[in-house]
Amino acid sequence: MKLEKLRQEVCDANLQLKESGLVLFTWGNVSGYDKNEKLVVIKPSGISYDELTPDLLTIVNLEGEIVEGELNPSTDTPTHLELYKSFPGIGGISHTHSTNATIWSQSCLEIPCYGTTHADFFYGAVPVTRQLTAEEVENDYEKNTGKVIAERFKEIKPLEVPAVLVANHGPFTWGINAAKSVENSIVLEEVAGMALWTKKLMEIDKSIPDYLLDKHYLRKHGSGAYYGQK
Amino acid sequence: MKLEKLRQEVCDANLQLKESGLVLFTWGNVSGYDKNEKLVVIKPSGISYDELTPDLLTIVNLEGEIVEGELNPSTDTPTHLELYKSFPGIGGISHTHSTNATIWSQSCLEIPCYGTTHADFFYGAVPVTRQLTAEEVENDYEKNTGKVIAERFKEIKPLEVPAVLVANHGPFTWGINAAKSVENSIVLEEVAGMALWTKKLMEIDKSIPDYLLDKHYLRKHGSGAYYGQK
Amino acid sequence: MKLEKLRQEVCDANLQLKESGLVLFTWGNVSGYDKNEKLVVIKPSGISYDELTPDLLTIVNLEGEIVEGELNPSTDTPTHLELYKSFPGIGGISHTHSTNATIWSQSCLEIPCYGTTHADFFYGAVPVTRQLTAEEVENDYEKNTGKVIAERFKEIKPLEVPAVLVANHGPFTWGINAAKSVENSIVLEEVAGMALWTKKLMEIDKSIPDYLLDKHYLRKHGSGAYYGQK
Amino acid sequence: MKLEKLRQEVCDANLQLKESGLVLFTWGNVSGYDKNEKLVVIKPSGISYDELTPDLLTIVNLEGEIVEGELNPSTDTPTHLELYKSFPGIGGISHTHSTNATIWSQSCLEIPCYGTTHADFFYGAVPVTRQLTAEEVENDYEKNTGKVIAERFKEIKPLEVPAVLVANHGPFTWGINAAKSVENSIVLEEVAGMALWTKKLMEIDKSIPDYLLDKHYLRKHGSGAYYGQK
Repeated sequence: MKLEKLRQEVCDANLQLKESGLVLFTWGNVSGYDKNEKLVVIKPSGISYDELTPDLLTIVNLEGEIVEGELNPSTDTPTHLELYKSFPGIGGISHTHSTNATIWSQSCLEIPCYGTTHADFFYGAVPVTRQLTAEEVENDYEKNTGKVIAERFKEIKPLEVPAVLVANHGPFTWGINAAKSVENSIVLEEVAGMALWTKKLMEIDKSIPDYLLDKHYLRKHGSGAYYGQK
Repeated sequence: MKLEKLRQEVCDANLQLKESGLVLFTWGNVSGYDKNEKLVVIKPSGISYDELTPDLLTIVNLEGEIVEGELNPSTDTPTHLELYKSFPGIGGISHTHSTNATIWSQSCLEIPCYGTTHADFFYGAVPVTRQLTAEEVENDYEKNTGKVIAERFKEIKPLEVPAVLVANHGPFTWGINAAKSVENSIVLEEVAGMALWTKKLMEIDKSIPDYLLDKHYLRKHGSGAYYGQK
Repeated sequence: MKLEKLRQEVCDANLQLKESGLVLFTWGNVSGYDKNEKLVVIKPSGISYDELTPDLLTIVNLEGEIVEGELNPSTDTPTHLELYKSFPGIGGISHTHSTNATIWSQSCLEIPCYGTTHADFFYGAVPVTRQLTAEEVENDYEKNTGKVIAERFKEIKPLEVPAVLVANHGPFTWGINAAKSVENSIVLEEVAGMALWTKKLMEIDKSIPDYLLDKHYLRKHGSGAYYGQK
Repeated sequence: MKLEKLRQEVCDANLQLKESGLVLFTWGNVSGYDKNEKLVVIKPSGISYDELTPDLLTIVNLEGEIVEGELNPSTDTPTHLELYKSFPGIGGISHTHSTNATIWSQSCLEIPCYGTTHADFFYGAVPVTRQLTAEEVENDYEKNTGKVIAERFKEIKPLEVPAVLVANHGPFTWGINAAKSVENSIVLEEVAGMALWTKKLMEIDKSIPDYLLDKHYLRKHGSGAYYGQK
């Protein structure tokens, strides 16, 4: 069986997503990417988390062809593939309909950087995509979802803002591996929840000063980071 | 004992409703329908979920007469019967006072289709009934509750929008069997919660485009569905 | 030891209040009343629920004198005593700082009867007291809390609306016994939570029609009730 | 090994903070202070709560030099040190990004004393600091965070209002020891949550009368307190 280590990582990440409480029924999926083989390991569509094991995962290539596995991959697979093709350096992607992040997505509003909790993980607002056109929805909907995400990140570095809100739909997050993408889903949900009430309390969109955003993001990320153990 | 398989299914569905966290005390009930026998298996009134077993369920005919069982059926039985008579093809009904769905019911507002989470399960807004008149409340209240639901669905297909909000009261959901009706109660509660904040964020009722509603509903339902395993 | 059965009931009710999630730390208390002996069994002040046993409860008479027990009774005991003296027929009282009911109390707003969930338990709005005067707070504060509650119920039957919001403070509930008072605390918290969003959705205070309130309250209470088993 | 008893207390307090549900991942830290030795025991940076044991904690002096321990202390250590230097009598400090308290911090709004739940623990509004300047953020950020907190308390007694909201960031709480600082974090989170809806319901900032604040705070604190057992 191919990519046994990645299969295990992606299976673990899917189960962690479920345990985090972000997923009702089967409404979520995590994939992982092997950049050498150019292959994606992803959750099969509509399978319960209770019965998920590493060998049930589906492996597809970047064209979406099944390379190994007897089950259909997640319906959202074409979205994952577009992101792996567009965002060099990412190794895992998560998709959920988690409550708070979905509220912002449905409202077609980006999540402003209201505080340092946000700044610790996302270097600026979490962007929302434009709405897809009727034609983009009717043909290759899931692939076009990936394309509008990539379009939105033309001037944003994906690993500095590892999350997006798809308009009318819900969030995708990513990271250097599957586990990191799940962590970012959990953080996004918490940050999205805080932002709801923050917006109502302030009644105006007032983000934190840029110098504070820089400080918080950069004390955790990059060459000058000093959070945690060396 | 009659309908042993249906008794087991309806008992399981009642217990799942309780485990889902949607029900305080005994504030909920699930029934199942055998279309050949034209009989309804339903939770008895005021019985704790802890002591519920398949043989305690009550069986009534479509006129509401007890066919088997020593306990009174749920007070809401006449509502269930009206729905089975009016909505061909449904095989199970759930009623709860789940927090978010009840908030919309109390507010006498339908839940707009704000996003794809909603569109995956409900093909358009979840409708609210008109308020019952004083006379409808005073005589045959529970039966009239069923009638105003049926009245509201004259131009909606019940299996495409398997949920309703009874004005001032709370939600009923249904499906092809008892388990599906419980699933729809759980989804309705989640969608109703997301819609509260979505409405506040947007401050205007802006549903998703029709072409996106069609795409999401139809990729999960009907002859062209491609979600899940074949 | 006096009133062993009532001690057990009141201990169980205090523990149920804790398990219901309505109480942080020791922020709640339940008492029970023996109308023949005219004695009140109540939780001792500041004792953790983990170590609560029936024999640790304090027994006081209606003048607030300790009749049995080595621990101080709850600081709120004088409030309980005023209610037992003013409301004939009640046999148990609960006090909490449960989140949603406290929000309404702090806001000095009654909870309108927005729906049938409310109507099933409370026959009209859950009233809020007037604010206490500076003098009422400085002298005999807890006793005066009971007096302003009783004042508010001059034209309301306590067993038809078994709950009150003390302005700036929090809820008290009661019932025919200690267990019923806890049930009413749990229902009040749920109803209070639903009412927050209902108020925001409607933006006006619009209660349900009287005929619907009557129907729901009276199908569960009084001589014509038909909910549950005979 | 130094300060074994304090190590145990601080370890226990860190674990209690985690169990309280206030902390996602490693987003929180508790320290304790030995006033005789003038030493601070604090959680190491970025270490999971699952693996935290008393011997892994770091001991620093008031200049921030590591006196004992192989792991970097929490990134927030300079903030803790400023508070121990500025607030005589405190023996423990907690920092979290708990949801509701962070919402108020992000909104740069103090939490008004809306009710007696608040008054039982905080003698007046929970203050918010001014925003740090760009220069204060760029150099000695964590130390300056402590300084703006101390600045805000020039006319407030820290043990009467044992909590602060750092603008754009989140809460710090303290107490006579580490366990008390955790208790204050839990209470602050509950009070902050109640205050969100209270503010929306009232739409004006209306605190409780001073005489009621005095009564509630003083019946639990100071020489005239009469809550709990003697």
